[in-house]
Amino acid sequence: MTFVLGIDGGGTSCRAALATAGGEILGRAKSGAANIRSDLTGARTNIVDAARQAFLEAGEDPDLIPQTPAILGLAGANVGTYKQQLEAILPFSRSSVETDFEIALEGAVGSGDGAIAILGTGTAYMVRKQGKSRSVGAWGFQVGDQGSGARIGRDLLEQTLLAYDGIRESSPLTREMMGIFRDNPQDLVEFTTHAKPGDFGGFAPKVFENAARGDVVATWIVDKSVADVEASLGVLDLEQNDPLCLLGGLAPLYAPRLSERYRALLKTPLDDALGGAVRMAVRKFAGEAEAA
Amino acid sequence: MTFVLGIDGGGTSCRAALATAGGEILGRAKSGAANIRSDLTGARTNIVDAARQAFLEAGEDPDLIPQTPAILGLAGANVGTYKQQLEAILPFSRSSVETDFEIALEGAVGSGDGAIAILGTGTAYMVRKQGKSRSVGAWGFQVGDQGSGARIGRDLLEQTLLAYDGIRESSPLTREMMGIFRDNPQDLVEFTTHAKPGDFGGFAPKVFENAARGDVVATWIVDKSVADVEASLGVLDLEQNDPLCLLGGLAPLYAPRLSERYRALLKTPLDDALGGAVRMAVRKFAGEAEAA
Repeated sequence: MTFVLGIDGGGTSCRAALATAGGEILGRAKSGAANIRSDLTGARTNIVDAARQAFLEAGEDPDLIPQTPAILGLAGANVGTYKQQLEAILPFSRSSVETDFEIALEGAVGSGDGAIAILGTGTAYMVRKQGKSRSVGAWGFQVGDQGSGARIGRDLLEQTLLAYDGIRESSPLTREMMGIFRDNPQDLVEFTTHAKPGDFGGFAPKVFENAARGDVVATWIVDKSVADVEASLGVLDLEQNDPLCLLGGLAPLYAPRLSERYRALLKTPLDDALGGAVRMAVRKFAGEAEAA
Repeated sequence: MTFVLGIDGGGTSCRAALATAGGEILGRAKSGAANIRSDLTGARTNIVDAARQAFLEAGEDPDLIPQTPAILGLAGANVGTYKQQLEAILPFSRSSVETDFEIALEGAVGSGDGAIAILGTGTAYMVRKQGKSRSVGAWGFQVGDQGSGARIGRDLLEQTLLAYDGIRESSPLTREMMGIFRDNPQDLVEFTTHAKPGDFGGFAPKVFENAARGDVVATWIVDKSVADVEASLGVLDLEQNDPLCLLGGLAPLYAPRLSERYRALLKTPLDDALGGAVRMAVRKFAGEAEAA
């Protein structure tokens, strides 16, 4: 074994990195979606395509793919038997399909103990203790993802309608929101019937901004969301020296609002998820290469 | 004018009642959906069909339709210009299109002051004070309908997942729910991605049953829902003698849980929504008939 591959695949694109057995990245490439739940063979095609391109970018021969082991981090890899199905049809010398959270964790904190909180349109947590990792949350916007951008946006629209009806207090932010929907609650409701999590989440930065200005409704939503995030962090059993990395678009907005207990643990991520896949490939396969 | 028509139309069916100018119902009939938002001309066809059938059921001549005034209570009549569009194409001597809530209110409390709380898959409130009516809520499951069956079911699934992750306490009910989804949170999440409000609402009676048995999670959800319903009742400005009718499938479950202040106002509805349309037709049109 001369090389290892790291793959980071999701619903919109698939990234690959070719690295030496020592972990030095030689080439990167990107291809289309790798959604193993909705299109397994399409995902395989894009994964192999990204891997081939990474070889070419590195100036190496893609015919070495069958001799190269790969770590793949893919959304949905923990559901059903997709992982086993995909591993069976991949062309690499060895393939280990992990979740996207697993490689993000490895990228952020390396191979030791630690945790990540992914705070974006959705929310998810992953903790590793003595080599054993566990995920918390990531159940989606409808009945989970507390503290996510999608939930914050949905909360804002709900509070806006409650203020319109006089049931909860209004604020500059709820009045601004009514203005966005032409002061017509039906227009707001119409928006929510088609809105995807990302559409709700688009309002989240506005909520944080307004909370910083003291808006009473925004502050109520942010305080509740911080409490929700801390409740999830609470079950990760973090100890004093465990690194905690906040990832995702809302990470910089949450970081200063966490209680001292968690702020003391915060660390800058070592690497991104693709880097995490490469690190994991080196850790898992490089020893075998030396033995071979 | 010899007769009046009452029409109660919604997304699944349209009911019509033919009555004398004094309000005595002579014939009733039912036809297909009258959804004025998604199919205005289809709604007109089913409305006229139900009216014709009501004449035939009464042993009267449907050719009298152009001489008969009608009150129509239709879901969505308060949105955009659907009301005006439909009134312009109806064949009755006079047509007044009201919301489904307006005729439900007239049916429940008659022509005087009073209020209804519709507590079913969704929630909506309508109050009339000195002849002026006002609706509260009815903004749909995604960002409104607090206390509705859909919200209660969604809350239960959310609490079930939080209990699974150890973030909130579990209970016999959350454990029963996990069993329904084969102890697999992914199965639960899969259900929520396709579930309609009525699918979530299907779990609501179970929540009330378990709350009655002291289940801690069910009790928490029911207490929160009762508080939400009372918060909405609070903005109706009900006075001591205003009748309040609870309608909808959850009405008998909520009634004993309301605070004494609201329980003291509770009255049995005089009539259903179709009866309300007939009552309103008599009230609005019978005087004109005598004058003619």
